[in-house]
Amino acid sequence: MTDFEATRAMFHLPEGVIYLDGNSLGPLPRAATARMARTMQDEWGEMLITGWNRAGWMAQPRALGDRIGRLIGAEPGTVVLGDTLSVKVYQALAAALDMRPGRRVILSDSGNFPSDLYMAEGLIRALDRGLELRVVAPEEVADAITEEVAVTLLTEVDYRTGRLHDMADLTARAHAAGALTIWDLAHSAGALPVDVAGAGADFAVGCTYKYLNGGPGAPAFIHVAPRHADAAFPALSGWLGHDAPFDFEPAYRPGAGVERMRVGTPPVLAMAALDAALDVWDGVDMADLRARSIALSEIFIEGVEAACPMLTLASPRDPAIRGSQVSFRFAEGYAAMQALIARGVIGDFRAPDIMRFGLTPLYTGERDVRAAIRILTEVMQQRLWNDPACRARHAVT
Amino acid sequence: MTDFEATRAMFHLPEGVIYLDGNSLGPLPRAATARMARTMQDEWGEMLITGWNRAGWMAQPRALGDRIGRLIGAEPGTVVLGDTLSVKVYQALAAALDMRPGRRVILSDSGNFPSDLYMAEGLIRALDRGLELRVVAPEEVADAITEEVAVTLLTEVDYRTGRLHDMADLTARAHAAGALTIWDLAHSAGALPVDVAGAGADFAVGCTYKYLNGGPGAPAFIHVAPRHADAAFPALSGWLGHDAPFDFEPAYRPGAGVERMRVGTPPVLAMAALDAALDVWDGVDMADLRARSIALSEIFIEGVEAACPMLTLASPRDPAIRGSQVSFRFAEGYAAMQALIARGVIGDFRAPDIMRFGLTPLYTGERDVRAAIRILTEVMQQRLWNDPACRARHAVT
Repeated sequence: MTDFEATRAMFHLPEGVIYLDGNSLGPLPRAATARMARTMQDEWGEMLITGWNRAGWMAQPRALGDRIGRLIGAEPGTVVLGDTLSVKVYQALAAALDMRPGRRVILSDSGNFPSDLYMAEGLIRALDRGLELRVVAPEEVADAITEEVAVTLLTEVDYRTGRLHDMADLTARAHAAGALTIWDLAHSAGALPVDVAGAGADFAVGCTYKYLNGGPGAPAFIHVAPRHADAAFPALSGWLGHDAPFDFEPAYRPGAGVERMRVGTPPVLAMAALDAALDVWDGVDMADLRARSIALSEIFIEGVEAACPMLTLASPRDPAIRGSQVSFRFAEGYAAMQALIARGVIGDFRAPDIMRFGLTPLYTGERDVRAAIRILTEVMQQRLWNDPACRARHAVT
Repeated sequence: MTDFEATRAMFHLPEGVIYLDGNSLGPLPRAATARMARTMQDEWGEMLITGWNRAGWMAQPRALGDRIGRLIGAEPGTVVLGDTLSVKVYQALAAALDMRPGRRVILSDSGNFPSDLYMAEGLIRALDRGLELRVVAPEEVADAITEEVAVTLLTEVDYRTGRLHDMADLTARAHAAGALTIWDLAHSAGALPVDVAGAGADFAVGCTYKYLNGGPGAPAFIHVAPRHADAAFPALSGWLGHDAPFDFEPAYRPGAGVERMRVGTPPVLAMAALDAALDVWDGVDMADLRARSIALSEIFIEGVEAACPMLTLASPRDPAIRGSQVSFRFAEGYAAMQALIARGVIGDFRAPDIMRFGLTPLYTGERDVRAAIRILTEVMQQRLWNDPACRARHAVT
């Protein structure tokens, strides 16, 4: 059994805060600051340029990729770190389109994170060959997978509602229609068991600053199924994806396997924090995590629905098709969330009316959830969102 | 007058090392470790998700962009941080090609860093519309700017020889031919005075881990001339380049000005180290830096040529057309550099035969240069590169 008291003790959590926004930015792992100081002083400071080999910086995108691979069911050597999630979406999409030259549709859904759709738009505009981004409702994806579709671009867990796609089923349907699949695991990696190899996913991408707790702006990852890795051409063909980066050849030759999806110089300092964050996962069984995530979510839904009738559940009621977050709709949701944050319960708001709460078992327990229900109830019953200070609209939070 | 004793004291330099590779990776600024710890503990740790606003993380790519802008002669508000240099090259190139739809040639030179050429290759392959990457010798660029050319893609300072292009002249020639210019400032920013606005450069890109000392894998920057900023379409159209990222609109609308060149979530931890590194530049006058860089380079060339006749100067002899590095050709250069590094003088090697030495006035003085000459002389005169331990070829250093 996973010891969640032990994992909780591995995080710094501010006094007086109940943090239900780890699905946006995970908290600071206690070991990360010392690990970072070591990388800066003992590696960068003392080894200088020789750190690329002596400290293993150059190999780290692959090593960290393998640590994440274990959490998403990817074979060793099929995941590599680097860049941002948006850039990794672009890479996967460009490679997939290149592998399906006769087809013109990228299929996505309205529950996908906008940046994924934007990246597809930008690529379509640049390629200028009559490609179409077709966006359907999440429930309509299965029926929309036709033989026009080159590739599906789907986020497994809807960032607003937490609705979970059936990765294995949709991947099988895509393959039956001759299409490829890209799975965005932003709200999956570290949130629930994922099995990209078992599902037969062609590409998967994700970020590491949410459930994986790598820190603000931590690097992204990309997985390419081994059967495609030597066929997927990187449109972003940078030197570290070259077969022999340090030969400085004038022409590009893609490296073997997923290494070709590397682009530029790896983000060494950010990787140090992420490495420390991934240590937390060493003793975690994903089935235990999922069971606890569901238990916390059920308590939260039941408690909020009982006490706050103004809030409407936006997440699926069936935990089997829900990620590790719970969302409620409320027209004054932005102001209500500000009132809640002012009282120490941090969730977030997503336009137009979604109050979103991440339930993250590594550091959130039943007591936190019950306290959050109590404070949310107070905010709702006392209409505390009418306080004008809560109504000013900020960019983030 | 810039106080170079004071700037030197702002860096941690390992005992017994003379570091002539700051043109590859700058050393650790002493203040960076504490600044990073503060960002991790007081911002990430205590503010959690609210750090995006409260700690100013979201605005930082632009704020740091302005600090770098001052060093490269860019107008305020025209430089933004993020991603890697290779990704920024791709962004600039895709935007420039989009602005010159009738033209088919990307002009570069054989002194450009391979990753820039690779990124152009990848883009050309993806666009699949008969574009050509034309690579000429550095001296032939001026004459190769014809009306076929859509955009020139040049690194101002040649990474091997240190040869400096005339940015103002080549930009004027490109404009006269109706072409756009992209200047890669990897070996210029922080190395010598740059005036992108004065030269009329259309796009400029660069990295921050060399002369700017931002740390291994520090983020890149991009400058777009204000006259183009609202016309340059970002092929990498990520959510943070959207006009209203937090409205989560389904369709992409590019933001105003250079902000549209942002892509994904900014690398907050890496930016913290860079911010501390840029503090060092506050008291630095670029004309003083250039004068000292030239003085150190002249001493080094004169000393090495006098004592090591086996080494042939690969850099221009005229300091006016040389960056802040000095390179020598030597057939056994790899092994000789290993022997030199074993004796505490760190330079680097670039295939096939270049021994490269960065002269970085912020933390390198005349005494260092004279000691380096003495040790290099010992290596060369005693043929120390014949030591088998020096002959094994590693990936980097």
